Amino acid sequence: MKAFELQGYHLDALRLNERAVPQPGSQEVLIKVKAVSLNFRDALVVRGILQPNLSLPAVPVSDGVGEVVARGKAVKNIQIGDRVAGIFVQEWLAGNLQPGMLQSTLGTPRTGMLQEYVVLPEAGVVRVPEHLSNVQAASLPIAGVTAWHALMEADQVRPGEIVLIQGTGGVSLFALQFAVLAGAKVIITSRDQGKLAQATYLGAATTINVREIPAWDQYVLDLTDGRGVDHVLDVGGTATIERSLQAIRHNGHIHLVGALGGMQAILDLPLLFNKNIRLQAIQTGNRAMFEAMNRALSKHKLKPIVGRTFPFEQAPQAFQALFEGNTFGKIAIHL
Amino acid sequence: MKAFELQGYHLDALRLNERAVPQPGSQEVLIKVKAVSLNFRDALVVRGILQPNLSLPAVPVSDGVGEVVARGKAVKNIQIGDRVAGIFVQEWLAGNLQPGMLQSTLGTPRTGMLQEYVVLPEAGVVRVPEHLSNVQAASLPIAGVTAWHALMEADQVRPGEIVLIQGTGGVSLFALQFAVLAGAKVIITSRDQGKLAQATYLGAATTINVREIPAWDQYVLDLTDGRGVDHVLDVGGTATIERSLQAIRHNGHIHLVGALGGMQAILDLPLLFNKNIRLQAIQTGNRAMFEAMNRALSKHKLKPIVGRTFPFEQAPQAFQALFEGNTFGKIAIHL
Amino acid sequence: MKAFELQGYHLDALRLNERAVPQPGSQEVLIKVKAVSLNFRDALVVRGILQPNLSLPAVPVSDGVGEVVARGKAVKNIQIGDRVAGIFVQEWLAGNLQPGMLQSTLGTPRTGMLQEYVVLPEAGVVRVPEHLSNVQAASLPIAGVTAWHALMEADQVRPGEIVLIQGTGGVSLFALQFAVLAGAKVIITSRDQGKLAQATYLGAATTINVREIPAWDQYVLDLTDGRGVDHVLDVGGTATIERSLQAIRHNGHIHLVGALGGMQAILDLPLLFNKNIRLQAIQTGNRAMFEAMNRALSKHKLKPIVGRTFPFEQAPQAFQALFEGNTFGKIAIHL
Amino acid sequence: MKAFELQGYHLDALRLNERAVPQPGSQEVLIKVKAVSLNFRDALVVRGILQPNLSLPAVPVSDGVGEVVARGKAVKNIQIGDRVAGIFVQEWLAGNLQPGMLQSTLGTPRTGMLQEYVVLPEAGVVRVPEHLSNVQAASLPIAGVTAWHALMEADQVRPGEIVLIQGTGGVSLFALQFAVLAGAKVIITSRDQGKLAQATYLGAATTINVREIPAWDQYVLDLTDGRGVDHVLDVGGTATIERSLQAIRHNGHIHLVGALGGMQAILDLPLLFNKNIRLQAIQTGNRAMFEAMNRALSKHKLKPIVGRTFPFEQAPQAFQALFEGNTFGKIAIHL
Repeated sequence: MKAFELQGYHLDALRLNERAVPQPGSQEVLIKVKAVSLNFRDALVVRGILQPNLSLPAVPVSDGVGEVVARGKAVKNIQIGDRVAGIFVQEWLAGNLQPGMLQSTLGTPRTGMLQEYVVLPEAGVVRVPEHLSNVQAASLPIAGVTAWHALMEADQVRPGEIVLIQGTGGVSLFALQFAVLAGAKVIITSRDQGKLAQATYLGAATTINVREIPAWDQYVLDLTDGRGVDHVLDVGGTATIERSLQAIRHNGHIHLVGALGGMQAILDLPLLFNKNIRLQAIQTGNRAMFEAMNRALSKHKLKPIVGRTFPFEQAPQAFQALFEGNTFGKIAIHL
Repeated sequence: MKAFELQGYHLDALRLNERAVPQPGSQEVLIKVKAVSLNFRDALVVRGILQPNLSLPAVPVSDGVGEVVARGKAVKNIQIGDRVAGIFVQEWLAGNLQPGMLQSTLGTPRTGMLQEYVVLPEAGVVRVPEHLSNVQAASLPIAGVTAWHALMEADQVRPGEIVLIQGTGGVSLFALQFAVLAGAKVIITSRDQGKLAQATYLGAATTINVREIPAWDQYVLDLTDGRGVDHVLDVGGTATIERSLQAIRHNGHIHLVGALGGMQAILDLPLLFNKNIRLQAIQTGNRAMFEAMNRALSKHKLKPIVGRTFPFEQAPQAFQALFEGNTFGKIAIHL
Repeated sequence: MKAFELQGYHLDALRLNERAVPQPGSQEVLIKVKAVSLNFRDALVVRGILQPNLSLPAVPVSDGVGEVVARGKAVKNIQIGDRVAGIFVQEWLAGNLQPGMLQSTLGTPRTGMLQEYVVLPEAGVVRVPEHLSNVQAASLPIAGVTAWHALMEADQVRPGEIVLIQGTGGVSLFALQFAVLAGAKVIITSRDQGKLAQATYLGAATTINVREIPAWDQYVLDLTDGRGVDHVLDVGGTATIERSLQAIRHNGHIHLVGALGGMQAILDLPLLFNKNIRLQAIQTGNRAMFEAMNRALSKHKLKPIVGRTFPFEQAPQAFQALFEGNTFGKIAIHL
Repeated sequence: MKAFELQGYHLDALRLNERAVPQPGSQEVLIKVKAVSLNFRDALVVRGILQPNLSLPAVPVSDGVGEVVARGKAVKNIQIGDRVAGIFVQEWLAGNLQPGMLQSTLGTPRTGMLQEYVVLPEAGVVRVPEHLSNVQAASLPIAGVTAWHALMEADQVRPGEIVLIQGTGGVSLFALQFAVLAGAKVIITSRDQGKLAQATYLGAATTINVREIPAWDQYVLDLTDGRGVDHVLDVGGTATIERSLQAIRHNGHIHLVGALGGMQAILDLPLLFNKNIRLQAIQTGNRAMFEAMNRALSKHKLKPIVGRTFPFEQAPQAFQALFEGNTFGKIAIHL
């Protein structure tokens, strides 16, 4: 079978190679990969920023979906022919994240999905909704589950609440769709007017072009009669948290899901105290959350937004598009 | 001003009488009542079942909306001209229900809304959504707030969950609307095919005519591949709880909001244990819940279902319609 | 090795027999059983009440502790020499109970602990606190975890709260110890003055002899200035729930953990509504709860109460003592 | 009556003056002040840092206790002779903090407790536990309620959990006492060995002299076998948050209660994500929390730690001691 191997920490070192098809153990399934999707994390892996000491060569990419073509004899709930996605944190099945579980993430350190076949434990896969195409389903494991965890689990969005979503990246677009589904009103920000127009089409009630309105926090306070929003999905960290604290209401919830603006966030403490604010950092999610999300997607026939799709052989070009960052919606690869 | 006084515990003892217009104290507002709505509770009051030792005559009816026409000098947040509804439990502003608070309910023991003017403390009223007519707004305080409390506060409904709602009474119809708003799938039961058709129009995904399918619990299990529903809004108590326990999933939530089928509910304990079930009895709700509900109604321009409206003088006929119980939607009275 | 086999549904059919020592699979451990403890559930199994269609002969008893003497090659976190207990619901590791998981309970349908050796999956065991003797540790899996789940997870007890605990059975004594640990004040009931004296020794602030004070609910209201208790641990179901509803405060929590007084509980609905009461049925608990409990036991060097201990050969006599029900504390068997 | 008036923003401008005894309105009580206690906030007020635009002269100091000597005719639950404390945020009675409520804090902008008599609304006072002296009771409103809110409400401490408490200031000592009460194990830090010894006496299991062990986060990880602590009570903000993030376990809770080390906290985002950490800023608490805390104090006869007490006339010296910051326990003033 064919597999893309990372042989060094740069995109040119991503090489298509021949490998033996792996065989499933007794509690494992063999999956014929149909599609994968790329996340910002994959860029950090390929560039050696996230895991600079991997044992190379390694197959990258965390998100993928495929068809079960063989299974071990102790497998119970997954059938041959099922279409499944891998869970990003393979050992995080339910309850709280435990130390060490992050060593079990797909797309390194565990083998990734950018190959024709992959073996995963039965517990490490979930069936995906039938109404989704392969590339749509492939975009769920990281971006979808993170957005679901942020807005639908710990501090759950309610009908009539206002959710401020930053940007139009993968997690943000899922968050937009989920918040609308839950009856919330969404305010979304971007530097790109075209992306804002597309976000409106997906249900955003209000858009803010932060190129035109850099002081979006004050604008949001005006929009909400000074009350502030109930939730902020913060993707920027360093660059955005200060305004997030201004824009949030008393007892509001800030869901930290990204650090696009830098690795450190500076908090204004008096503001934090006076508004009794809660910050929750979100690390993707577990198997139970993935399944709850799938039930919601299925009920509403909701479809993830895929912006561009590349054939398997052009995986490096897909990565290039990821680096450029202009795509509205996920970047996917079909096999 | 005119007021309906309950002079004995039967409908014939509900008499229109002349009273002096009350004057607001320093923290109170004077409200010109525009509309009231009837609840099952009002029938129990008029018949002397709920509070058999009231000091008569007493003005009945809990739910009402009106315009503020005067206010005490210490009133801060309510303006003359505001359209407001009274909070059912006048002293329950936020947090948990405390002992004794139920002595402060409108429509006895505190004076009710079936009169042309009423004085309430500023803290005991909330502004109602602008897009609602008077009779629509008048239907919120008991039925709306109870449904909101049940499904949106303690054990909150999530997108993709399945909510079984029993019947098409006041609380049930609000619950249907709120569950749909929150992205849930609603299964609703009734003995009346016409009412089920109307419920479908309001967004119910599945309807069950319990006259035709008395074993609706088994039917629900079949519909959900044996998994059961995530939430049951139980209005029947005695008559329904047994099937509710069958129809609910593991770790499911039963929201008890009514006792139409009798004053006692019999629980099958082994079933309760094996499914780790939670039952939460719901006593209307507080001021903070009322305001959260209003924000949701406003955002979605959602309108309560009013089935019949009577003029003020025909209040006894409105009660008669309440006793008969055939109306789909609330019974209201306009002034 | 020796094993007690249930060969029919009565105590005389519990026979000591010879079996082959089982071998662990790759993710399993072989445990040399050191002690077991009996629960009310074991009596229902032996009498064929709970699972009347078992494939006999079957080894009964859910709770047990032993030493790991061999392990499969894929076992990661459990070492040879570790002292471990089996988790009652073997497949319930974290999060919510799922349908079908109750098919994985130890002591039927899965093989029980009343034998010299047993094989369990690595995920199905937890290390037990070092300060406990074998018989003390053996009493944790059902009674300890159930009490922990009830009072320390969903609706957690706080310092200064009042917890009413019914009876002095296994779960009740753990609940007493845990509630005291959490800074709560415990009121405990029993029909036996000697057991109440022992409960006082364990930290109960108030004891009620229900033989002398059958209307204990009224007594509890008097003790709490009419406010009622914050939590009730209800073990009786049919016989006790009515008084539990009277004795609880507004927004109080009733933790249903047993059905000693019958299989059905009758609820007074108006009382339930007017106090906004929550009932949560408790089905033992999961692995994560077991571990959290163990941390608390270890920190406080808290020891379960074992009332009587029998040698392995006298297991039938231990069951006889269980049927008689006079023991204060758990009944255990050491090997 | 005598009152200390702040006539400018420095300690010399705190002058004893004569004022008329105020009279209670219909829903108010007149309190003869018996004791007050000082908080860090009072220092910020006196120096004009917190509220630089007060209408001077103003009576400072938030915390105080006294005896009710007169009451308005509409007062219901408070009797003459009751010993009461003022609630810090007078309008925050239950539920969430709302915008504007912080305008109702005692000790400016509302009149403070450093005077012989004060009038407060009935809803703005709570009875204090009988076993406390006046100076002990006076230390509850800010420091006690903040610690209670942090550890006993939103993300509640459980038996067996490990709580890291920073420093031995007012909130920290209450937190130590409450965490021990709840069955947790406390690790406490200080730069002063003598204070650590006293903390051990109050129940701290482990003390860390941060002068000797500046890298206390690593030390804490070693103490907990690499797992980290369940909760951190962070009082330092800028100076401490970085180590707090290191010392906390996965899914741990950081309760931000102070900003002693600066007004800004810098967060390491990758760490935050990888451990799924929650930060909750704590703004004192509401009336319902105050009452819950009082029940816990009463049940356990727990006494706040008062380090030094000054007579009324020496209030400036008490402030001087507050500025110096060497006292273990609260600084109080008795009248």
